[in-house]
Amino acid sequence: MLKKQDNDLLTQTGPGTPMGELFRRFWLPALLSEEVAEAGGAPVRLQLLSERMLAFRDSNGKLGLIDEFCAHRGVSLWFGRNEEGGIRCPYHGWKYDVQGQCIDVPSEPAESGYCNKIKLKSYPLVEQGGVVWVYMGPPEQQPPLPAYEFSTVPASQSFMTKRLQECNWLQALEGGVDSSHVSFLHRGALNSDPLFKGARGNQYNLNDFSPVFEVVEATGGLYIGARRNAEDDQYYWRITPWVMPCFTMVPPRGDHPVHGHFWVPIDDENCWAWSFDYHPTRELTTAEVDAMKAGNGIHVRYVPGTYRPLQNKENDYLIDRAAQKAGTSYSGVEGIGMQDASLQESMGPIQDRTRENLVSTDNGIIMVRHRLMKAARALAEKGVQPPGRDPQSQQVRSVAIVLRRDLPFKEGAKDALHAEAGKAHTTI
Amino acid sequence: MLKKQDNDLLTQTGPGTPMGELFRRFWLPALLSEEVAEAGGAPVRLQLLSERMLAFRDSNGKLGLIDEFCAHRGVSLWFGRNEEGGIRCPYHGWKYDVQGQCIDVPSEPAESGYCNKIKLKSYPLVEQGGVVWVYMGPPEQQPPLPAYEFSTVPASQSFMTKRLQECNWLQALEGGVDSSHVSFLHRGALNSDPLFKGARGNQYNLNDFSPVFEVVEATGGLYIGARRNAEDDQYYWRITPWVMPCFTMVPPRGDHPVHGHFWVPIDDENCWAWSFDYHPTRELTTAEVDAMKAGNGIHVRYVPGTYRPLQNKENDYLIDRAAQKAGTSYSGVEGIGMQDASLQESMGPIQDRTRENLVSTDNGIIMVRHRLMKAARALAEKGVQPPGRDPQSQQVRSVAIVLRRDLPFKEGAKDALHAEAGKAHTTI
Amino acid sequence: MLKKQDNDLLTQTGPGTPMGELFRRFWLPALLSEEVAEAGGAPVRLQLLSERMLAFRDSNGKLGLIDEFCAHRGVSLWFGRNEEGGIRCPYHGWKYDVQGQCIDVPSEPAESGYCNKIKLKSYPLVEQGGVVWVYMGPPEQQPPLPAYEFSTVPASQSFMTKRLQECNWLQALEGGVDSSHVSFLHRGALNSDPLFKGARGNQYNLNDFSPVFEVVEATGGLYIGARRNAEDDQYYWRITPWVMPCFTMVPPRGDHPVHGHFWVPIDDENCWAWSFDYHPTRELTTAEVDAMKAGNGIHVRYVPGTYRPLQNKENDYLIDRAAQKAGTSYSGVEGIGMQDASLQESMGPIQDRTRENLVSTDNGIIMVRHRLMKAARALAEKGVQPPGRDPQSQQVRSVAIVLRRDLPFKEGAKDALHAEAGKAHTTI
Repeated sequence: MLKKQDNDLLTQTGPGTPMGELFRRFWLPALLSEEVAEAGGAPVRLQLLSERMLAFRDSNGKLGLIDEFCAHRGVSLWFGRNEEGGIRCPYHGWKYDVQGQCIDVPSEPAESGYCNKIKLKSYPLVEQGGVVWVYMGPPEQQPPLPAYEFSTVPASQSFMTKRLQECNWLQALEGGVDSSHVSFLHRGALNSDPLFKGARGNQYNLNDFSPVFEVVEATGGLYIGARRNAEDDQYYWRITPWVMPCFTMVPPRGDHPVHGHFWVPIDDENCWAWSFDYHPTRELTTAEVDAMKAGNGIHVRYVPGTYRPLQNKENDYLIDRAAQKAGTSYSGVEGIGMQDASLQESMGPIQDRTRENLVSTDNGIIMVRHRLMKAARALAEKGVQPPGRDPQSQQVRSVAIVLRRDLPFKEGAKDALHAEAGKAHTTI
Repeated sequence: MLKKQDNDLLTQTGPGTPMGELFRRFWLPALLSEEVAEAGGAPVRLQLLSERMLAFRDSNGKLGLIDEFCAHRGVSLWFGRNEEGGIRCPYHGWKYDVQGQCIDVPSEPAESGYCNKIKLKSYPLVEQGGVVWVYMGPPEQQPPLPAYEFSTVPASQSFMTKRLQECNWLQALEGGVDSSHVSFLHRGALNSDPLFKGARGNQYNLNDFSPVFEVVEATGGLYIGARRNAEDDQYYWRITPWVMPCFTMVPPRGDHPVHGHFWVPIDDENCWAWSFDYHPTRELTTAEVDAMKAGNGIHVRYVPGTYRPLQNKENDYLIDRAAQKAGTSYSGVEGIGMQDASLQESMGPIQDRTRENLVSTDNGIIMVRHRLMKAARALAEKGVQPPGRDPQSQQVRSVAIVLRRDLPFKEGAKDALHAEAGKAHTTI
Repeated sequence: MLKKQDNDLLTQTGPGTPMGELFRRFWLPALLSEEVAEAGGAPVRLQLLSERMLAFRDSNGKLGLIDEFCAHRGVSLWFGRNEEGGIRCPYHGWKYDVQGQCIDVPSEPAESGYCNKIKLKSYPLVEQGGVVWVYMGPPEQQPPLPAYEFSTVPASQSFMTKRLQECNWLQALEGGVDSSHVSFLHRGALNSDPLFKGARGNQYNLNDFSPVFEVVEATGGLYIGARRNAEDDQYYWRITPWVMPCFTMVPPRGDHPVHGHFWVPIDDENCWAWSFDYHPTRELTTAEVDAMKAGNGIHVRYVPGTYRPLQNKENDYLIDRAAQKAGTSYSGVEGIGMQDASLQESMGPIQDRTRENLVSTDNGIIMVRHRLMKAARALAEKGVQPPGRDPQSQQVRSVAIVLRRDLPFKEGAKDALHAEAGKAHTTI
């Protein structure tokens, strides 16, 4: 349970808010590379952290992210012409380069130098792992490039999608660090989803409904371990890394690809749920990629022409009460991603955490909130840079492992939790 | 004309408002029995008096109405699994019985007794006359069960529907106690509707546009008598009973079933219009029930899969200007229910009563408001229970009768106004 | 750039606002004649300057504009019956004539004279040039009838449409006095639109992107001259008259019909864009009228049954990126009217003018704002009637002319700027 002011602190990420400033100290996923693939192609409207912006790839192939609106009279540059070396407002021809610098005001004599004085807000972008990343903070505090393993393996080993989630980012993140709901909400999928089924570890999930949580500090966030009973006086551990502010990984299953998420605020009542699958040591198979594209695993199907899920709150997520009753789907909503999203959105645009009742299996959530608040306050009050910005903090792995009961997971899985190129991941 | 604060007092029914408290001293129609017919069936979201709740019938056939949201982390229990003896949240498996008592928290040891401490808000339900009724007030002040005649006759004699009305409850109720609009708005229907036409009394409505109103106090509300001239120095009286807070009956026509309404607030800008038809002494015929199901009489057709009328403000109620011009429909809107709803919704979400101009035929409305305000204030300020909660107050009938001009209706219709099992109703 | 309070002053036009009062001193286009063509036909809802009203033509052919809502209990008279000599509320039969005078309250004895005391707000209408005009100001300050030339030529010489524009009126007006965007946004249309193409003057637009603006005061507003270089030491002048508060004309092209607009506030976030085409000295051809009806020139296609453009913000104006890339359409939006509307709506419901950066080609806009603010303040503070209300101020013409460089346009085009029946217009 949170006090109202703490809930506000955690959920508000607009310009000038403490949590908004925290987010603005990280590289964040902004767009799929496919959205701005073509040099000189159509620009893309993008809202993040309550700021409206425009992304485009100029005729030279350079990527830019600038204020959506022309400095002249406020027209949306989404209608702009992506011309030689910049985007041109279609109203009076003002032209901007990828850094927002105005490079032409046709009505003013070139020699006046007028356009040099006009510059739109812009943020640096970098493309890596099929994702266009943005850094929206002070230039002098820009961190090293993203080092999450999914984004550094060869492209053939990795697959990424995004979907609109119609609620505040925090309740989405909290689902990502909550290993205990898997035994309930996703139990049907554990047996049927082509990207989940068949792993030996699934049986532990299905048989033990009271996982015990142990949460351990990591340099950039937390390792959230959930242990369930296994045979021979052992524990089955599922370990979920969280890296500040919004990166989470799902513990692996057999030789399936590993997956995880970013939960990036659009505004305070919507977020982008980013979903990746990758394999540390082999290419994804055609069957796997086809399954992801078809909306299996943590991916979803879309309303055509959008990144809004086809199953959404307007249609009650196409809930199937007969499947729910039969138990083939635990909640009646199809698909792991939409099972999560449907419940998280049902909490309301911003969950009222003054009314919740947390239990021991919520320890991960409690610790995540605690560290976020602490880091946001340290930044706001003392200018302390938040943890999680360095490559090492980001080079983490989720782990599924069976250990002796007397062995703490931090010790038993120590090596497995660290990502290293070419090293097989630890999974069961 | 009302002062703004009086209009606010009458129209606001959320928790803690004086009128909301008044409503919370009565059994109110909550759901049609058909909505929660199946033991273990799908739960139903329900909003009344600005409170969001969930109704379900458990596997043992018991009905429950509880807070819509799980006590744990605020997920809507509408996604819940209706399992053995309770509804289970699909997120982490917390389970609640029909009284909102938490009976399972799988992650906590059963012996901890944790779940005993968790209880959701819940309200008692009772099923009677095809309706599920709710009492949302203090337990110690729960009134006797509903005794309205339509709900106590054999099921074969009674028929009930509900429809969404997109305006405040009061302007809907005010239509229900306003006998004078019948001569105008519904005059086409008096000649054509299978559930209205053919009664001798209709001619009095069609011939006299200036009814004279006499309003008489009843124990639980009012009798609103509207008299029109009849032959031989007589009056044709139509007497509408109103029982606190929102029950009204339409005066009968010939041997047609008698009908009436409840007007129950959803929030301050929407209400449920409940519409019943019953016959005190005989079964409804197949033709009558078919006509009701087809949207005749006071019933309506729906947007498929919902209780929203097919004719609604988005489509201008499918107004037919040619029929209006020809006079076959007075307003051009088809159907008695939608004729009323279209005009009441056109007043805006909450009618601004500071701008109205009431006349003598509005006496019923004026008196209803007066009694509601008086009762709401007496309850709020002195804890006085409102009238209309006892069976006798609810055992009323509407009456259509021709009386000598010198005979007050309260006297001439005295016996007819009282409902009594097996007694024929007084109608013309 | 404006201060916030100046932007508020200019953009707010509801009752009691200074700019709203200014608008209420002029005859404004209210409806197309075709909307209320039939005596006794369907009434029409109309919102202007944030007031909701109802227009109807009574059985005698008289036009009326009255409050939308019945004085009795607030029902929308849009559902009313347009009967003999007035409109009758379908709820209780109250009847009003075209001046809002109540002429029947059926429930009250005629001899009581009750209905004489009931009068709805109403405004005078006048029909001229295919347009129904309204004057919403104090009766004693009603100006002479409209004298704009398009509305005084024979009907066969003139054509008028209207369309909903989903933004504040001022950003629409500012497009109307901004000659410089033609060289950009509409350059595709100059070569292809049947009502624009082929004029010799177009070439000057297409070749010179830095027009120089000269703005000259007129009695009722401004003449905004934009000159571009022409051959032989001459200037090509395009002169746009603006008449207070919201009338603008587009400079002509060859023998094409002349066109122009009114921009009339519906509320502060929507306006009607009125678009006329007329020829001062000849009938419009069938080909021209067919082209206008098909949405060419400054006209648009509609969502069937409405005046909302088929291309609108819900469908991103059906932008065609391939056509934009190819340059056949500069912004990718088809049609001159929607090219303007799409950009103006993209500024937001009310443009934030505290963030703009105006340049010399915005002189027309700057001067228009200045005169509007000055006139609104003079009216509010000193009761000074605004200019532009007299016929002479309205008898203006737009002009396209080539002049010697040393000849000021005010002099060289002096006669051409004045509308006079039978006189050919000056165009190139």
